[in-house]
Amino acid sequence: MPRSVAAHRQAVVDLLTGVVSGKGNVTLPLLEALGKALAVDVYAPLSLPPFANSQMDGFAVRSADIPDGGAELQVAEPVPAGAAPAALKPGFAAPIMTGAMIPDGADAVVPIERATPDSFPDPATVGAVVELPPVAPGTYVRDSGSDIAKGALALPAGTRMGPAQLGLLAALGLTTVEVREPWRVLLVTTGDEVVEPGEDLTAGKIFDSNGTLLEASMRQAGLDVVRTGISDDDPSKLLAVLRRHAAPSDRRVDVIVTTGGVSKGAYEVVRQALANQPVDFLPVAMQPGGPQGLGSFDGVPFLGFPGNPVSCLVSFEMFLRPALSRVLGTPAPRPVMKARLAESLASPEGKHQVRRGTLDPDGTVRMEGGAGSHLVHALARANALVHIPGDVTELTDGDEVEVWML
Amino acid sequence: MPRSVAAHRQAVVDLLTGVVSGKGNVTLPLLEALGKALAVDVYAPLSLPPFANSQMDGFAVRSADIPDGGAELQVAEPVPAGAAPAALKPGFAAPIMTGAMIPDGADAVVPIERATPDSFPDPATVGAVVELPPVAPGTYVRDSGSDIAKGALALPAGTRMGPAQLGLLAALGLTTVEVREPWRVLLVTTGDEVVEPGEDLTAGKIFDSNGTLLEASMRQAGLDVVRTGISDDDPSKLLAVLRRHAAPSDRRVDVIVTTGGVSKGAYEVVRQALANQPVDFLPVAMQPGGPQGLGSFDGVPFLGFPGNPVSCLVSFEMFLRPALSRVLGTPAPRPVMKARLAESLASPEGKHQVRRGTLDPDGTVRMEGGAGSHLVHALARANALVHIPGDVTELTDGDEVEVWML
Repeated sequence: MPRSVAAHRQAVVDLLTGVVSGKGNVTLPLLEALGKALAVDVYAPLSLPPFANSQMDGFAVRSADIPDGGAELQVAEPVPAGAAPAALKPGFAAPIMTGAMIPDGADAVVPIERATPDSFPDPATVGAVVELPPVAPGTYVRDSGSDIAKGALALPAGTRMGPAQLGLLAALGLTTVEVREPWRVLLVTTGDEVVEPGEDLTAGKIFDSNGTLLEASMRQAGLDVVRTGISDDDPSKLLAVLRRHAAPSDRRVDVIVTTGGVSKGAYEVVRQALANQPVDFLPVAMQPGGPQGLGSFDGVPFLGFPGNPVSCLVSFEMFLRPALSRVLGTPAPRPVMKARLAESLASPEGKHQVRRGTLDPDGTVRMEGGAGSHLVHALARANALVHIPGDVTELTDGDEVEVWML
Repeated sequence: MPRSVAAHRQAVVDLLTGVVSGKGNVTLPLLEALGKALAVDVYAPLSLPPFANSQMDGFAVRSADIPDGGAELQVAEPVPAGAAPAALKPGFAAPIMTGAMIPDGADAVVPIERATPDSFPDPATVGAVVELPPVAPGTYVRDSGSDIAKGALALPAGTRMGPAQLGLLAALGLTTVEVREPWRVLLVTTGDEVVEPGEDLTAGKIFDSNGTLLEASMRQAGLDVVRTGISDDDPSKLLAVLRRHAAPSDRRVDVIVTTGGVSKGAYEVVRQALANQPVDFLPVAMQPGGPQGLGSFDGVPFLGFPGNPVSCLVSFEMFLRPALSRVLGTPAPRPVMKARLAESLASPEGKHQVRRGTLDPDGTVRMEGGAGSHLVHALARANALVHIPGDVTELTDGDEVEVWML
């Protein structure tokens, strides 16, 4: 029985969980932490707002000074944002700007539009007065700590650091943040038939797209990628490459990913090279990307993806990427949406089929290319993965499917 | 009448469209182009697949050699992936691996599972035979050019370069790609009340979060960001900063963004500094982020965002980011989803309200914090912007709303 997609994903999660304890944290300037996962809980070193301030341009008043019918108050010194104002005397109203500190004694703000006159007097005017309507205590006052109180949990460990999270840390006066040390992944593409882009393409050969496709995917997911060039179909050479990067040292990689050489053919270099390592080569009930390798090489977690580019991308998106999200907090999971098929589809029974499609703004999804795992041009037109569960063999246009946005 | 959100977004698009013609292209190694927009149409320099190859491990045959009842064929030399095989002689079947080149003369592949015996003979065996069922011409053959033909359009100009697009270019043998030159944006935060994170916070002051929040947002959107530190409320100092970066030179910025100083208070430094420039300061029917500045400074497109951090983020997400997507092709538009409210909401009539929320896996969205534009801690918990159109004033829990995933 092939393993289910969910069971294999869980096996990848279990495998990667062991890496976490061996990795440390690094302290980075805020902007360098963009896209990384917070390593520790961060508590607020001050309250936000740090002081009560005005939500409007208007007059700061003592609400008790204004009876139901309104009152005429003397105009005090204006309070611009950034100033430390004097206390407000009874019977006075202080012109105050949005964000400026509420003076001691004041407990409410009347917006300028409700004042008579409805504009601020020239600050040079002596003895100006303003007529104001009554106002409830607290009106248009942003209390100190109303967003977060000093000492409260600002961000829990594991939070992905996006613009808003970094903005919060800056608002709290912080300039650096402790994030999880990035993982180093060794990426080895294999196959006698594969040559580097830019080299000569002789009969029977193809250019390596897996390396570029997966390195780009891994970089987007926040991994540091180590490339070795292409390994041919000689198991002893592949072994030597893997041993060098798995040997204990400060350059040891945290995860190894290979492409190709994991199915049941006669020349499966990855299977052959790893015959004496605790690695399972097994079918997963998925198409494409069915043959998978999973285990460890000299103690380093190992994933063996199949050799076709679409299979590589699907393997990454279905297994490694979600496992990283679960274990590390980054990258963000793919947005999951429901869409209506623009065409009818058939899918093999017992296999979770992952098709590539374009989700259009009207909520329908069109397939890009057929099921073939070599269709990299079709893949490059797609913006979504389309999921057809293993127990579904026929779908009609208009049927609802789950899609993951790429 | 305040300007509508759609009209203001279009005005930003129009403003930025003028920048495009002044910018050139740059040629980058594939992986450095990740996330950038293709500057030119790319045509396929070769067909994919480059040659007909096998979709399965099996036997390459001349289909005409096998009558309806099946046939026993002599086993030819095996064809591993990467080899240039000899032509297949009539009456022979060549063991062939997935991805290997179909020999001249062969026109179909019989999978190994359907052969008798169902495993490949040792290549050293002389005179081995195999019994094979009939097969239609073309079966399990991936034809040359079936993904893309040589000379066809591989990727149109404007394509965002993600893993699949870069993988396609690698498959086509390319090592570099021509992308649009990144834009340089000058980001100036203003206000007497704002101090840099890490400095002393005296009474009435707050730490600048807008700079970090917007620089992170702009970097994620692919912009090169130039920072100047905080400009205080002296218009002449702000003018000097803007003039320096807008002066014709090879360091001239392409866009200027300021925060703060655009509303109707008494100390609006941006309005004052730009009084003699073609800039409109106008209300947009949106909350938060209503007051906006738009125009140009010494010929450089100018956007003036309001001063609260949530207003800054909403201004960026509602105006600048979608305008960049439209004009440049990058960044990718935010995924738009429908969600059901987890609570009831009120919204001011005539204003498009943009609330911050968390979309849960069950498809419901909870608000994070109230409507206040200073709530940066609440913002940091949100994963989505929740849209309440201007003509909606009351929503009940369970009602459907549009959300944009952050």
